[in-house]
Amino acid sequence: MPPIALLTDFGLSDTYVGVMKGVISELSPDAQVIDVTHAIPQGDIRLAAFKLWQAVDYFPDGTVFVVVVDPGVGTSRKPVAVTWRSLQIIAPDNGVLTYLLCLEPAKSAVVLENEVYQLDLVSTTFHGRDIFAPAGAHIWNGVELERLGRPLADLMQFRPPSLEPGDRSIRGEILHADRFGNLITSIGRLSASTSGYQFQPWYSQSPAGNFPAGTARATLPDGTSLDLQTTFGDVPPGDPVAYIGSEGLVEIAVNGGSALVELGFGSGDPVELRFEGHDG
Amino acid sequence: MPPIALLTDFGLSDTYVGVMKGVISELSPDAQVIDVTHAIPQGDIRLAAFKLWQAVDYFPDGTVFVVVVDPGVGTSRKPVAVTWRSLQIIAPDNGVLTYLLCLEPAKSAVVLENEVYQLDLVSTTFHGRDIFAPAGAHIWNGVELERLGRPLADLMQFRPPSLEPGDRSIRGEILHADRFGNLITSIGRLSASTSGYQFQPWYSQSPAGNFPAGTARATLPDGTSLDLQTTFGDVPPGDPVAYIGSEGLVEIAVNGGSALVELGFGSGDPVELRFEGHDG
Amino acid sequence: MPPIALLTDFGLSDTYVGVMKGVISELSPDAQVIDVTHAIPQGDIRLAAFKLWQAVDYFPDGTVFVVVVDPGVGTSRKPVAVTWRSLQIIAPDNGVLTYLLCLEPAKSAVVLENEVYQLDLVSTTFHGRDIFAPAGAHIWNGVELERLGRPLADLMQFRPPSLEPGDRSIRGEILHADRFGNLITSIGRLSASTSGYQFQPWYSQSPAGNFPAGTARATLPDGTSLDLQTTFGDVPPGDPVAYIGSEGLVEIAVNGGSALVELGFGSGDPVELRFEGHDG
Repeated sequence: MPPIALLTDFGLSDTYVGVMKGVISELSPDAQVIDVTHAIPQGDIRLAAFKLWQAVDYFPDGTVFVVVVDPGVGTSRKPVAVTWRSLQIIAPDNGVLTYLLCLEPAKSAVVLENEVYQLDLVSTTFHGRDIFAPAGAHIWNGVELERLGRPLADLMQFRPPSLEPGDRSIRGEILHADRFGNLITSIGRLSASTSGYQFQPWYSQSPAGNFPAGTARATLPDGTSLDLQTTFGDVPPGDPVAYIGSEGLVEIAVNGGSALVELGFGSGDPVELRFEGHDG
Repeated sequence: MPPIALLTDFGLSDTYVGVMKGVISELSPDAQVIDVTHAIPQGDIRLAAFKLWQAVDYFPDGTVFVVVVDPGVGTSRKPVAVTWRSLQIIAPDNGVLTYLLCLEPAKSAVVLENEVYQLDLVSTTFHGRDIFAPAGAHIWNGVELERLGRPLADLMQFRPPSLEPGDRSIRGEILHADRFGNLITSIGRLSASTSGYQFQPWYSQSPAGNFPAGTARATLPDGTSLDLQTTFGDVPPGDPVAYIGSEGLVEIAVNGGSALVELGFGSGDPVELRFEGHDG
Repeated sequence: MPPIALLTDFGLSDTYVGVMKGVISELSPDAQVIDVTHAIPQGDIRLAAFKLWQAVDYFPDGTVFVVVVDPGVGTSRKPVAVTWRSLQIIAPDNGVLTYLLCLEPAKSAVVLENEVYQLDLVSTTFHGRDIFAPAGAHIWNGVELERLGRPLADLMQFRPPSLEPGDRSIRGEILHADRFGNLITSIGRLSASTSGYQFQPWYSQSPAGNFPAGTARATLPDGTSLDLQTTFGDVPPGDPVAYIGSEGLVEIAVNGGSALVELGFGSGDPVELRFEGHDG
């Protein structure tokens, strides 16, 4: 059986996640529960959407994701269950599915309003425990999506970051920093081979393309530029470096340091990658 | 099978919890182990007692709780195993079961002194690994409580916080702040409906009661008062707000901020909730 | 079935660990996965080696350890799979197995180079996901070690800390501080009984020995000395104390405080334990 995967902003300093697992254990005692992460900064829907995109490819078909990054809990935002590709995703309808839905529309979506599949008492502040965890468990148990509530035609999406492929360049922007201070950009997915760079937009259905082999240079927000390297170990300690990260996105790092702190760029700042070829 | 649930103050920055799980895995390879939390501040028995109370309702019948918040490890405090309602709880006898025992006495309790159910070498500083984890695993395996040691008549309890229902008010106190800086009070459990407020003392067997519908106002330690709202989103960002939290306890928050930091109240400070009805 | 045990420096603030578990779940859906810890300081191979040594005794025979503390990811350091005693260990060949190999040589070791047992796309920066997790899952599934790559004769080891038993003393050094600020020394394993102290070097095959019962005194790097106590509760709050920790290693603590902060000693500083007997 595939697992139930949890992604929240609850942290591990309180019992929120533990209690959600207790609820799942009561309803689906045989389900394996995997923590994708609980360290999304509180209410950061855009980062949660990115982390969800980052994770989905590496989980088995049939995995039930329970996503609780929910700054609107207790307001009119809708709790939903969505079938997307081979996965079931339980989440607030607040944009957290944006990148997935850019790639491919949901197969079906319902609003979680059938109280039969909720805890007896639903609080106004902890829907993770009272609505989302029980929904995930029931769906894992095989309850059909449509029994959990009425169909929903449109799911919320935020405006995704810029990603503009050109003739011999790709314009994008810095998305966020990871915990090492590496700056993740929207430029990707890229992979390099002897025949050149293969480009496959990571969150859209726009066509894939190719760029010439040879030198590629990333222009940073302040106009300086860096040759694209294979890994951050290709430059001396303390030097800035651009490379293709483990998700196929261009990242800006400082070898052994924090690009976030040392370079001073941040979310939304523009980055451009130019392919200059062998005669660059 | 129900799970084994762990609640400790070990944090996750060391291998303490991982090693306890290794020990459980050796003795009970099929047991599912759930982390309730490991982020209790070191030695904070009262907070651990609250978190345990908070969790127990959401775990399946038969769950084995292993609670290791144990500032007296290596001294004469007793390690115990307790049957409480449908649960088995392994813990040091230091008050960590106080709220549960206020609600209902233990069905049985033993001192963990049978070395057959401990690791071969018992250290003086890590009973979580050497005594508590093995006891939890053996009990999960079906070993009867009385085989682990001699019966214990009285379990330690600390003096619980004040909670005094009156005619049209309830006096209580601030228990602690959660990780968002929300101040959790002892006033509860409360639930609201059109017919009024239902009150069920959360840690005692004293009778339930009702208070009239309409305005309810929380008086803070400095004398200011706040209307009881449905959720923190009912006031503008930056404003203080009182509402019934996800456990049914009155909480004081600042919408989008930290009540702990911005209001400056703390554990033990008095709070009163007055029910003023519709003619408030 | 034994578990798969993960030990990394990825922390829990990102999805690295969650994604590794997704990969394992896809390949070995029935494996129980246990987190030993993910809080090794980034790239701290020596501490990871110690934590691995600390954990292995408490996991079942047949456990598959996946160790990813890998500052050289993407360089020429080799990913390896090793059979050691009854365990299988997947790790970078960077010294992280040092203490284990001091105790007993590996039964076999291979370089993970068979791409059949890796993810289709191997990044240069996240071998935990692309190489180590799949290798752990395949080995847990019963794939023979030799199918994962060519045999490796020598595994990297760093120079271990000093540990010099003498006639009536043992010289060693401070290894590191734990999260409470207790200073863990290399002096051990020691156990105390009425007949004296039993000494069994913790990371080497050199012979065990005995020291006389009675007073034992630890001399700190600044020349002051402390009687060896049973536990830190044996001295008044605020006082420094030496005792035998839960691993059998001598530790220096301050009761209720941080020896790291208050005493100011650190990794590599010399400590000597003198056995003075009953006539001290």
